[in-house]
Amino acid sequence: MRMYDVIAKKRDGGMLTREEIAFAVNGYVDGSVPDYQMSALLMAIYLRGMTDEETAVLTDVMAHSGDMVDLSAIQGVKVDKHSTGGVGDKTTLVIAPIVAACGVRIAKMSGRGLGHTGGTIDKMEAVPGTRTALTQEEFFRQVNEIGISVIGQSGKIAVADKKMYALRDVTATVGCIPLIASSIMSKKLAAGSDAILLDVTMGNGAFMKNLEDATELARQMVAIGTANGRKVAALITDMDKPLGQNIGNSLEVAESMAVLQGKGPTDLTEVCLQLAANMLVLAGRGGLPACRAMAEGVIRDGTAFVKCCQMFAAQGGDVSVLKDPSRFPKAKYSYELTARETGYIVENDVEKIGNASVLLGAGRIKKEDSIDFAAGITMHKKLGDAVKAGESICTFYANDPALFAAAEEMYRGGLVIGPEKPHVPPLIYARVTAQGVERF
Amino acid sequence: MRMYDVIAKKRDGGMLTREEIAFAVNGYVDGSVPDYQMSALLMAIYLRGMTDEETAVLTDVMAHSGDMVDLSAIQGVKVDKHSTGGVGDKTTLVIAPIVAACGVRIAKMSGRGLGHTGGTIDKMEAVPGTRTALTQEEFFRQVNEIGISVIGQSGKIAVADKKMYALRDVTATVGCIPLIASSIMSKKLAAGSDAILLDVTMGNGAFMKNLEDATELARQMVAIGTANGRKVAALITDMDKPLGQNIGNSLEVAESMAVLQGKGPTDLTEVCLQLAANMLVLAGRGGLPACRAMAEGVIRDGTAFVKCCQMFAAQGGDVSVLKDPSRFPKAKYSYELTARETGYIVENDVEKIGNASVLLGAGRIKKEDSIDFAAGITMHKKLGDAVKAGESICTFYANDPALFAAAEEMYRGGLVIGPEKPHVPPLIYARVTAQGVERF
Repeated sequence: MRMYDVIAKKRDGGMLTREEIAFAVNGYVDGSVPDYQMSALLMAIYLRGMTDEETAVLTDVMAHSGDMVDLSAIQGVKVDKHSTGGVGDKTTLVIAPIVAACGVRIAKMSGRGLGHTGGTIDKMEAVPGTRTALTQEEFFRQVNEIGISVIGQSGKIAVADKKMYALRDVTATVGCIPLIASSIMSKKLAAGSDAILLDVTMGNGAFMKNLEDATELARQMVAIGTANGRKVAALITDMDKPLGQNIGNSLEVAESMAVLQGKGPTDLTEVCLQLAANMLVLAGRGGLPACRAMAEGVIRDGTAFVKCCQMFAAQGGDVSVLKDPSRFPKAKYSYELTARETGYIVENDVEKIGNASVLLGAGRIKKEDSIDFAAGITMHKKLGDAVKAGESICTFYANDPALFAAAEEMYRGGLVIGPEKPHVPPLIYARVTAQGVERF
Repeated sequence: MRMYDVIAKKRDGGMLTREEIAFAVNGYVDGSVPDYQMSALLMAIYLRGMTDEETAVLTDVMAHSGDMVDLSAIQGVKVDKHSTGGVGDKTTLVIAPIVAACGVRIAKMSGRGLGHTGGTIDKMEAVPGTRTALTQEEFFRQVNEIGISVIGQSGKIAVADKKMYALRDVTATVGCIPLIASSIMSKKLAAGSDAILLDVTMGNGAFMKNLEDATELARQMVAIGTANGRKVAALITDMDKPLGQNIGNSLEVAESMAVLQGKGPTDLTEVCLQLAANMLVLAGRGGLPACRAMAEGVIRDGTAFVKCCQMFAAQGGDVSVLKDPSRFPKAKYSYELTARETGYIVENDVEKIGNASVLLGAGRIKKEDSIDFAAGITMHKKLGDAVKAGESICTFYANDPALFAAAEEMYRGGLVIGPEKPHVPPLIYARVTAQGVERF
């Protein structure tokens, strides 16, 4: 087989076989297929597309290019959850303990933040002492003992995806639904859970800008998982405004703990309950209304928060900051960004909010950058809210006051105050399962 | 400017500016644009196409990536000719002396053969002693003194094209009309002639398989030349059978001399007269009928053959073999390939004929291969001819009898004898100029 012929076939709109896909992907990993051939194939895929069958095979081949985690040492159904990226998205920290408190085991690998989106592992490390790199034995033992562990993703998961993603990133072939779907799902298949709930974010700051694309991405990911023997469902959630009020690592942990204690912001609480209920459904715990009631129950009776504290404690974290977030190390400086006019917030670009938090020190521009856990933003007025001139829209936190100016410019660059209350999008647009699409 | 954005623009069907094209091409030459980005752009161009304006700019940028030959030291109008590749295509050896004998200066750079197609420079070197690498001073002096020189193409001509072609060759992006047109024309623009006649070959063994594609390639090349201030015309000629009877270097030189002496095969003579007449038209020597008469005249009065001998003599060649081809070094062995049944030759794949001659030693598979000038094929029966079982279809010549078996298998693989006389395509299909397309 020659890579040339694989490229030419896809270029002409042909359907690649498992052998051809495996030849290209495995050859790229072992170096026998050079990057210039892989980039030509990726552009051909971008412009010609792939069938569901090809996408499922590509995903399976990429998953098998690295370690396939075997979770069989953990008893019961294992459910995973993945978000396609958000700003202020701290749902994993809330949902994982809820689901675990309901008796479903969570053996989850998460990522770090890059660019305007944050990552669960960074947020966990904001809790002093928390270890996110466990040995497999420690990981399995913890899940079997307390029912939950969230750790950093191993570098050996879906190595083909890692190499291909780096190439797509510099060859303008990232924004292609079959490639996005297979990239995400290859890591999820390799991570070994029996069921996977996908949170497909949609909005100006997300990969998917409209409901049609988001639904198609969700549909393809569900199809990939189903074709590879997993139970998969997806919720399409809004990313036109951040969930909750806080962006930044310690700030988001504090807010997550508030939700687990039943006193969190309404929007974040609602989305977390929906996601958790859907994970419980996937785990076979009943229908959606029963699962929703179960999730509400473990918040009300405090067991979800207790489960979260157990997890952090097991991983070495200082649980006192979870119980009393005022004990988190504080940023030295804060700054109030005030409204310049009276009206409604009619635009508040989420990517710019995320980038402003990065400029304050809360995130990374490059992978090597270090993070200031205390830095971030607390939003007092969000998209659709009424503001008066001079009123504080948000508070910036940083350990260097010189950072405020650039962050303010970034934040204001996406902020528009107008005379009329705008349409505010719903929190959740649709639910996609192997059975079809259900609009909310 | 970022290469990423150039790729993304073309991926989305946008029209690239001169600055963007220059950034990509010059960056690729100087190494600041890596091959994996260039191959992604080439695939995007393959699938999204380019406007005439983009193609003209790409060609100009590629031409300027190497030496731009300045022919102003040569008096008068300089006319060039290019063929898109053929088997047994020895027209340059015939046309260049005809046109020069009519008083139009020929300062031409030609290529070597690769794969199933031959090259003029190899054929010239079959004449013992011939030098095809002259200094620029020698080249100009010879053209000014005797009106003609044909030399090998400098490695510094259109260096971007050379590098891009090598990449296209391994990324399945060769067969794209704007890229083919700009590749050919970049070398022609750099070679410095005022006018260019293009011989666009069409048929199973050619890049262009049908009249529509061949016409489009011709149209684009004429448009590129016109946009860059050159006079350009194209003839679309048949490649469903080789011109003349001979394939192989010495054999083709001998056949070319026969045409110049008025005793060559009809098909080759006719195509050469048409091509030469069109070159004379481009040089401003009159209308097509007058130019055709002029070309016939210099064959009849012997001045074209004299001009050819002058050229070879000036470049050190042994002219005695031109005057008496029996003096060419002979292949040690010959083999008659005979018809296995009686009927008509209804198929005779040109690419396989060319590959059979390569297997006999007459051509190269890789650039580094050496050539046996004496090896080749003389065809006695061509597409459409009647044959009797046992009759010789062609004679193979080689210096190693062990080569005949593979060459025969290759030749017979494209040979079909059937009961009915097939349709034989015309020699010339159409003429394309800046004014439009004229079907023959």
